Amino acid sequence: MKMGKAAVMVDFDKPFEVRNYPLPDKVEQGAVLVKMVMAGICGTDVHTWLGHTGGKILNFPVILGHENVGEIVELGGEVKDWNGIPLKKGDRITWPTTIGTYCYQCFNCTVAGIPNKCLQRKTYGAGITSEQSPHFLGGWAEYCYLYPRTSLFKLPDGLPAEALVASGCAAPTMVHASEKADIHVGDTVVVQGSGPVGLFGLIVARENGAGKVIVVGGPTERLDLARRWGADATIDISEVKDPKDRVQLVKEKSLSKYGADVVFECSGVPAAFAEGAQYARDGGRYVIVGQFMDAGPSETFHPFWITFKELTVMGSYSWEPKHTGRAVALIDRIKDKYSLKDIVTDRFKLEQTTEAIQAVRDWKTIKAVLVP
Amino acid sequence: MKMGKAAVMVDFDKPFEVRNYPLPDKVEQGAVLVKMVMAGICGTDVHTWLGHTGGKILNFPVILGHENVGEIVELGGEVKDWNGIPLKKGDRITWPTTIGTYCYQCFNCTVAGIPNKCLQRKTYGAGITSEQSPHFLGGWAEYCYLYPRTSLFKLPDGLPAEALVASGCAAPTMVHASEKADIHVGDTVVVQGSGPVGLFGLIVARENGAGKVIVVGGPTERLDLARRWGADATIDISEVKDPKDRVQLVKEKSLSKYGADVVFECSGVPAAFAEGAQYARDGGRYVIVGQFMDAGPSETFHPFWITFKELTVMGSYSWEPKHTGRAVALIDRIKDKYSLKDIVTDRFKLEQTTEAIQAVRDWKTIKAVLVP
Amino acid sequence: MKMGKAAVMVDFDKPFEVRNYPLPDKVEQGAVLVKMVMAGICGTDVHTWLGHTGGKILNFPVILGHENVGEIVELGGEVKDWNGIPLKKGDRITWPTTIGTYCYQCFNCTVAGIPNKCLQRKTYGAGITSEQSPHFLGGWAEYCYLYPRTSLFKLPDGLPAEALVASGCAAPTMVHASEKADIHVGDTVVVQGSGPVGLFGLIVARENGAGKVIVVGGPTERLDLARRWGADATIDISEVKDPKDRVQLVKEKSLSKYGADVVFECSGVPAAFAEGAQYARDGGRYVIVGQFMDAGPSETFHPFWITFKELTVMGSYSWEPKHTGRAVALIDRIKDKYSLKDIVTDRFKLEQTTEAIQAVRDWKTIKAVLVP
Amino acid sequence: MKMGKAAVMVDFDKPFEVRNYPLPDKVEQGAVLVKMVMAGICGTDVHTWLGHTGGKILNFPVILGHENVGEIVELGGEVKDWNGIPLKKGDRITWPTTIGTYCYQCFNCTVAGIPNKCLQRKTYGAGITSEQSPHFLGGWAEYCYLYPRTSLFKLPDGLPAEALVASGCAAPTMVHASEKADIHVGDTVVVQGSGPVGLFGLIVARENGAGKVIVVGGPTERLDLARRWGADATIDISEVKDPKDRVQLVKEKSLSKYGADVVFECSGVPAAFAEGAQYARDGGRYVIVGQFMDAGPSETFHPFWITFKELTVMGSYSWEPKHTGRAVALIDRIKDKYSLKDIVTDRFKLEQTTEAIQAVRDWKTIKAVLVP
Repeated sequence: MKMGKAAVMVDFDKPFEVRNYPLPDKVEQGAVLVKMVMAGICGTDVHTWLGHTGGKILNFPVILGHENVGEIVELGGEVKDWNGIPLKKGDRITWPTTIGTYCYQCFNCTVAGIPNKCLQRKTYGAGITSEQSPHFLGGWAEYCYLYPRTSLFKLPDGLPAEALVASGCAAPTMVHASEKADIHVGDTVVVQGSGPVGLFGLIVARENGAGKVIVVGGPTERLDLARRWGADATIDISEVKDPKDRVQLVKEKSLSKYGADVVFECSGVPAAFAEGAQYARDGGRYVIVGQFMDAGPSETFHPFWITFKELTVMGSYSWEPKHTGRAVALIDRIKDKYSLKDIVTDRFKLEQTTEAIQAVRDWKTIKAVLVP
Repeated sequence: MKMGKAAVMVDFDKPFEVRNYPLPDKVEQGAVLVKMVMAGICGTDVHTWLGHTGGKILNFPVILGHENVGEIVELGGEVKDWNGIPLKKGDRITWPTTIGTYCYQCFNCTVAGIPNKCLQRKTYGAGITSEQSPHFLGGWAEYCYLYPRTSLFKLPDGLPAEALVASGCAAPTMVHASEKADIHVGDTVVVQGSGPVGLFGLIVARENGAGKVIVVGGPTERLDLARRWGADATIDISEVKDPKDRVQLVKEKSLSKYGADVVFECSGVPAAFAEGAQYARDGGRYVIVGQFMDAGPSETFHPFWITFKELTVMGSYSWEPKHTGRAVALIDRIKDKYSLKDIVTDRFKLEQTTEAIQAVRDWKTIKAVLVP
Repeated sequence: MKMGKAAVMVDFDKPFEVRNYPLPDKVEQGAVLVKMVMAGICGTDVHTWLGHTGGKILNFPVILGHENVGEIVELGGEVKDWNGIPLKKGDRITWPTTIGTYCYQCFNCTVAGIPNKCLQRKTYGAGITSEQSPHFLGGWAEYCYLYPRTSLFKLPDGLPAEALVASGCAAPTMVHASEKADIHVGDTVVVQGSGPVGLFGLIVARENGAGKVIVVGGPTERLDLARRWGADATIDISEVKDPKDRVQLVKEKSLSKYGADVVFECSGVPAAFAEGAQYARDGGRYVIVGQFMDAGPSETFHPFWITFKELTVMGSYSWEPKHTGRAVALIDRIKDKYSLKDIVTDRFKLEQTTEAIQAVRDWKTIKAVLVP
Repeated sequence: MKMGKAAVMVDFDKPFEVRNYPLPDKVEQGAVLVKMVMAGICGTDVHTWLGHTGGKILNFPVILGHENVGEIVELGGEVKDWNGIPLKKGDRITWPTTIGTYCYQCFNCTVAGIPNKCLQRKTYGAGITSEQSPHFLGGWAEYCYLYPRTSLFKLPDGLPAEALVASGCAAPTMVHASEKADIHVGDTVVVQGSGPVGLFGLIVARENGAGKVIVVGGPTERLDLARRWGADATIDISEVKDPKDRVQLVKEKSLSKYGADVVFECSGVPAAFAEGAQYARDGGRYVIVGQFMDAGPSETFHPFWITFKELTVMGSYSWEPKHTGRAVALIDRIKDKYSLKDIVTDRFKLEQTTEAIQAVRDWKTIKAVLVP
């Protein structure tokens, strides 16, 4: 019986352990087994590790990792990728977090029309304990088992795995969010947050017609990167410390002088919501993308602002497979323009997972990856 | 020189005084002088009187009153109403709060496309001191002078002034807000607040296709009225005191059991915002109408809800003349179905203005009016 | 072996035959067998019978009938209706045309987000030959077999089958279309066509906030019914014969005098498209519902009108199960207000199917039904 | 009295004449007199000259020319440009076609909310006869007089007049249209027509997030230019002559293989409408921009396509001053990327106006300009 290694999370805020699990004897019809090429460490992983799960119980031990590139080693019969391309051993693929497909029977799938909010969704990378077969259901391991109907995406030739993992879940998250923002040619767009989601917010704003993009965040190196990637202006929150001053600055820097036409909240910090609402001009659009986990109230937010400014505030949660498809194509199109692979600043082995997640927690990396 | 009486506000939270002012010698081309038939006392008047103006300075003394019906006594030449109907002496008219028309030169008029947020707008009923000619620029008086280009609406024959004033600014406010709500046939709609705006929220929800309407508010008599007007359910906040229980109740009472498709915030209470966001189903629409004055933060609001539930939250501020036109037509169409004139529970003379506004402040009336 | 009768279509434009088929021995898990209570004859049935299928080949013989109410006689285990209500023998149910559920794998299901346009959809009532088991897959028979996952809707107590069948597929079709129309309170809505779809267009316009509804169609009895159902005006195309005059009349009758805010095309006649585009005011919305089958070009349509008038023209095709759910609730809510069951003007037995479809073809009925 | 030359159109399809008119003695408060630097010849000018005005009567003689850059020679007091920049002699400016501003009193301004469709709009460049003072109200002259409240836009330093005039009215037209198209990152966009509007359709598609842009048109040189400007594919209508083949090709070339997500009609040819509707995928968006003048019916258009494909078809007519502002900024941003000034292929003097308009009529130029 062939075995593989995995970095497993045994409890909240405890060191990761490397365990060996048997590979599945048989890959069922429609499923795929990949050897992991590279897996990203996402801010959501840090939140999960620290226990910010809003009371959601994890079935320990689990294998994290949802920003993945793997190389196919086994296929259960004929399997096609999401675009209809027949897959074969050796192909490099990526996949979103949903195990299989949405239920298409729940209220959100059939009535609300938002399958990305499927009430029955099961996920790779924390959803199922690694103690049960097929064990390998997260990316921080030597292998990953992909159930039938999982949306698979073959990487275009010439697209480095680094570029894809660096873009991680930020890319499809922002491709989805940008569809809600409806950016018009020439809009002033403000991006709150300069982590991976914010940086991809900058990219989609740039690629989707913005006339001016302002990134509000920190630390310095990330804002430097933002400017290299085409941010017209950056505001460092460690320099401009008073939110009132930042609101004032955004207005001054906006093309109309009346504030942003579109604001993307990509920081995940609750207080940012109250601030971003003030960045927007009257009649502006505010897309809340970063508040993916419940980090508490935004205590200084006045609902009066929504009425008085006639804002439209929209939530965008996660994404659908079609957005992964568009994200992969986008990354392939712009990989050189933005040198995406160069933002992978730190590489770790599975044995260094604890060290790696701490580095991300402490904002010491731009993008850290695990390479088994 | 002919004189007229007016109830003037001399300072915040001070008794009103009745003063005499001369009527204008001449009504300029395009202007109209009306004898007031009736004027409503609106929640906004109470806020203004109490000084909740967000720091805005009033040029005392001023004449309040923006829910008005007057009878034309003088016209400056040929004047037509907004619908193109030629006006004559004796016609009963109403008008929105904007003096003349919007500037159509400012950012909000020409770029944002929201003239109701015109940055140069001047208003009847508190905007200009009554010490200057033409003195009569609010409804709490014997006369009102209406500048050229003011949007005038002739009352249909058979429409009692009571029905129009009872609907007051709530009607056009909610006609405007309902355009943003995009209610689908069969939607569950929750209305937060059972003051005039909330009651008209119920009416527009009912008339615009709601399958079920739930009103959350108080006190009892208003909720009784709401049920008589077709609310399928009411939740009395003095009975169900814990917001969590109200959230639970709304879900249970919603047709889908997943929460409201549409929520209207019509209470103006900041805390209501955090509560209403939890009433909405995933993918729901939340229209914030009532937060017309800045009453502070909604301290328990989690921005996570917007992302996680993929809510769309929209502000609706005031209205445009076209909404007054539609409101007048709506009121005329439904006046009997809802017995609108019967909600005028209290009538006061100009000399009783202080008493009247106190009664409204203390929630002792459903709708109070001044009859000079 | 128990047998049941069915009226089968053996070829285009040929008399129907009554055949006997064996009932299924066993109702599979999740499936349901109903005894038909009543089935409507829809305009689409006429088109299908006449061979207006756009080249689509039917696998004769087939059983038509997609506006159905049946009484459950067998269940395959525990089956719930779409709203989660457990079903039992004797319950009256209705169901949309889709066999089972959408594929949720095709482009339209997963990318376009319009599962009603599922590329793999199979349908009751013409999709599958009646010569194969389970034979009974259309409503014009004594029984109907409903495959697992079919969306079933229990009829509310007190809702007559006539009211539901009379509303037929017109009701969910227009519930769906009205979601695209976004009718505002006070809009002038024009409905083109006074067949069942048009009459339900009138109802949803009325219930969804229209200030004035104008129905354009014929013959006289249908327009009389339209007025009884609340049409503010009707235009009889046999009286006002020149489309230019009808365009002029619509403008005059519209509340603004500038044309309709919303137009519903419910006639299915290609020429109606060119006419309806001229009914709409500048910036108006035009929802094309009735062009369900390809009846050729609209030869006099000027695309200039779309640019010059800045129209928004939207197609609405069929519906999703959620719209059936809302349609059933709507019908139950308004059944008395509109006396829906009274529009069933003609009842036929299975043996009279040919006679029945000819009567519908010749516009001799308002609504005809088959009662086995 | 100082005089200036103008090329005047004396009748439909007749040679232009050069006439001398006196310059105004005095430039009224808020007005501006410019010396023309350059004026474009637009397809609309050709239509006007040929008499395709839909029966609209022109008050001959008139001065055409609405794609203008002029240098200020006189100002009526302090005048600011639309962005608030104080203007002075020697500044280079451009302006849209509206004389002064919209009426803001008509139905389209106040109810429909589309001031670009103002019913009282008066225009430079054909609207008013040149025989009356101030004579110079079109760009094909040595001077142009700009009435108070006309929206003026100062050209950024370093922006060649050629780049602006080459972009002409195509740029703001397509900036406006792109706001309706709501292009998502990765969309396949098809542009019908490769004249100036189509070429700018390509640019806005490219800049607004398209994943693939396909231009359908001709002749060869324009399609070559389209490819140099980033079109991923072009279809030459003189090579692929059967519209059915073009429809097939568009599907094959679309990223999804199901057709275009967005189609822009920029050709102005009525038959193109029937063709473009077939380019779009189910649920696609079709923006009709080019049908600016009434060139007759689209005889082969089946309204069935709109219903069956659930298309959204939107008209976009002309533009508002805000779009000119965004167009100028866009042109300045991309002038080098697209070498905009190089598309001015032909320069003519005022005396050569007839020759110039014939060259444009005969498709012998990409962009022709008049330089007085």
